[in-house]
Amino acid sequence: MPLTANDPKRKSWLHVPKNSDFPIQNIPFGVFLTRDDIITIGTRIGETAIDLGALHQLGYFKGIDLTDDIFLQDTLNDFIADGRKTWRLVRNRISDLFLDGNDELRKNKDHCKEVLFRLDEIEMQLPVDVGDYTDFYASKEHATNVGSLFRDPENALLPNWLHIPIGYHGRSSSIVPSGTPIRRPIGQTKPRDDGKPGFGPSKLLDFELEMAFITTATNDLGKRVKIEDAEENIFGLVLFNDWSARDIQAWEYVPLGPFLGKSFASTISPWIVTLDALEPFRVDGPKQEPTPLPYLRQKGKKNFDIHLQAAIQPKGSKETVVANSNFKYMYWSMAQQLTHHTVNGCNVRSGDMMGSGTISGPTEDSYGSMLELSWKGTKPLQLNDGSERKFINDGDTVIMRGYCEKDGLRLGFGECSGKVLPAKE
Amino acid sequence: MPLTANDPKRKSWLHVPKNSDFPIQNIPFGVFLTRDDIITIGTRIGETAIDLGALHQLGYFKGIDLTDDIFLQDTLNDFIADGRKTWRLVRNRISDLFLDGNDELRKNKDHCKEVLFRLDEIEMQLPVDVGDYTDFYASKEHATNVGSLFRDPENALLPNWLHIPIGYHGRSSSIVPSGTPIRRPIGQTKPRDDGKPGFGPSKLLDFELEMAFITTATNDLGKRVKIEDAEENIFGLVLFNDWSARDIQAWEYVPLGPFLGKSFASTISPWIVTLDALEPFRVDGPKQEPTPLPYLRQKGKKNFDIHLQAAIQPKGSKETVVANSNFKYMYWSMAQQLTHHTVNGCNVRSGDMMGSGTISGPTEDSYGSMLELSWKGTKPLQLNDGSERKFINDGDTVIMRGYCEKDGLRLGFGECSGKVLPAKE
Repeated sequence: MPLTANDPKRKSWLHVPKNSDFPIQNIPFGVFLTRDDIITIGTRIGETAIDLGALHQLGYFKGIDLTDDIFLQDTLNDFIADGRKTWRLVRNRISDLFLDGNDELRKNKDHCKEVLFRLDEIEMQLPVDVGDYTDFYASKEHATNVGSLFRDPENALLPNWLHIPIGYHGRSSSIVPSGTPIRRPIGQTKPRDDGKPGFGPSKLLDFELEMAFITTATNDLGKRVKIEDAEENIFGLVLFNDWSARDIQAWEYVPLGPFLGKSFASTISPWIVTLDALEPFRVDGPKQEPTPLPYLRQKGKKNFDIHLQAAIQPKGSKETVVANSNFKYMYWSMAQQLTHHTVNGCNVRSGDMMGSGTISGPTEDSYGSMLELSWKGTKPLQLNDGSERKFINDGDTVIMRGYCEKDGLRLGFGECSGKVLPAKE
Repeated sequence: MPLTANDPKRKSWLHVPKNSDFPIQNIPFGVFLTRDDIITIGTRIGETAIDLGALHQLGYFKGIDLTDDIFLQDTLNDFIADGRKTWRLVRNRISDLFLDGNDELRKNKDHCKEVLFRLDEIEMQLPVDVGDYTDFYASKEHATNVGSLFRDPENALLPNWLHIPIGYHGRSSSIVPSGTPIRRPIGQTKPRDDGKPGFGPSKLLDFELEMAFITTATNDLGKRVKIEDAEENIFGLVLFNDWSARDIQAWEYVPLGPFLGKSFASTISPWIVTLDALEPFRVDGPKQEPTPLPYLRQKGKKNFDIHLQAAIQPKGSKETVVANSNFKYMYWSMAQQLTHHTVNGCNVRSGDMMGSGTISGPTEDSYGSMLELSWKGTKPLQLNDGSERKFINDGDTVIMRGYCEKDGLRLGFGECSGKVLPAKE
């Protein structure tokens, strides 16, 4: 099936501002609450949100094999379970319907009124019910930085790291959409001089600049996904802020891994950008040396050139961009992550989410967390308003952005933001 | 509300065999498929399964504030969300309805025919949709054994263990009900002499004898549960086999914890025994020294005296009981686990599951895993059929059982079993 929807020459009859993340080549999927308090599945072109539930009821998806209520749901899980062929048919139809010159919907004012919303008329929701959320640790620069900071700079990477896409199970319940305030967590920290553990609000609150992909149901329990089939099962991606309380994490994480230092919140951008939309932005990943085991060997370009940015906006001030990274730095690809996840027979369901881990680049300004940017607090960052940051303060809003750009085509993810509220003791 | 349903003198008009796990004082909750291929919520007395969906439709729960379809669902999540007061009213009503001398239902043959099933007419399902599953590490003996085997016998317990109920996020998707066959997992293991990681079927497949509790929705994101309120939010318990591939686990688990060594399967017993039914079996837990931080300090008897057993049944042979442990050995109580889990503001939902971690007792025959029982393979166990086991073989069925006994009252959990199938490469 040709991906004509990706043609950079296509323009929409809906207004798309210059440098918008949402040209007609994007067509992301999300869930929103409308002005009439109805939850629906939708997409977005420029500054306009489009109600796919209403579009479907009005007959605009005729000829595509969809159940009547597929878009009248509060999550995308069932639509994602329909599989890639259906996603493509729907994306192509939307792309045609909103293409400049197509008056089918445009000239029907009643239908337009029913289907189109200004962004200030809707409220974005979590796009999926996340059955299981897994976080990987797939950036070599990040793993090396963390290993240097907490263990031994000479042996920063642990022996398994170059063989295994290391990952761990995360907490699904506390994944929230962009804009949700984040309460500073309370917890135990390393013992003080009297030998008793500390207790109170985290003093080392951090962000982690990540992306996460969302899967369709890939395999039954006991089966596995082959590397060549892995991408067929990836619906799309979101920006992901894996909020971290470094002091809680440091005291609790041995030997079973991070727990309460992470589970208080994770923020995602609400529009899922499909893998199809990202197709033009494929690039080679870093060379993998030693060669991975056969089940992880992949062919072709499996990384994606996505500019990533993290900014801090103190209360009442303007933001300062503190990190510029790129999704292409990932050592282990999404295909390798998903393949590895199922090699033991673990079943993956529609709506499951897999985070990349912090994506750090090779330069100091491309590190994806305050831990690395301030080198464990030894090099405070200067913000535009004159204040300094080693970690995140109460009242700070952390804003992540991501976009791709090539041959005159630009598309992106919108924002993934969260404001930190003071701890409640 | 008095727990008269626990009175040891109560007898049911349904036949209850001697030493049954399911006397009228139990009244567990589960989900089953009936002979008519309908999924319903039910309970069990003796050898009889009772369709609560049908009972409710026939009006037997009149006066209790329940939605019409509360039992006509494929999970208990909504019923659990109704809260403890409702659970008690329903349990008491069932206890009265099946009490010897109550002919209300007994004499209505048509109703009985609609409501009562022989066990061979039903098929037990997963009782809840597990939103998030967390596994703790709450037995001091187990943590000490593992620390001795893998690290340093002199410093077997890590410094955080006596302060924190250590836990980690597990995989929800691969939790299966008793009776589901378990496929031996494949994966990477420690590098061989040539420096390359091994790959293939796990050679060190193990069980972990655990229990797990199921919660109601306890707290919104950013709030926490106080220790004195924790038990109000625990619906009940199941037996839990946290299948483990020790060789996969050993290679992957640093620094983020167990992942594919666990996520291929976990087996639970299908009947949830309520905390109310376990009330008569409360006991003191082990003395906690040092005293935990204030948020973890509890009053009263928070442990439960539940005999636990693990047996191995080789293909075509009789079983051998290999471990006799007890849930009372838990160092950190369920109340402490749940309180700790939410101290950072992490939200817990109805149907979430929290495993205890392997429950090992003080004596060598009370260890809850083959890793400990065979002391890492150095002391093979002798089975009744003359064969030896260091770990679990293909064709072996692992069977766990649990029951309480006091003052002439005995109730239990039924079986939690799974047969190991050979790996599929």
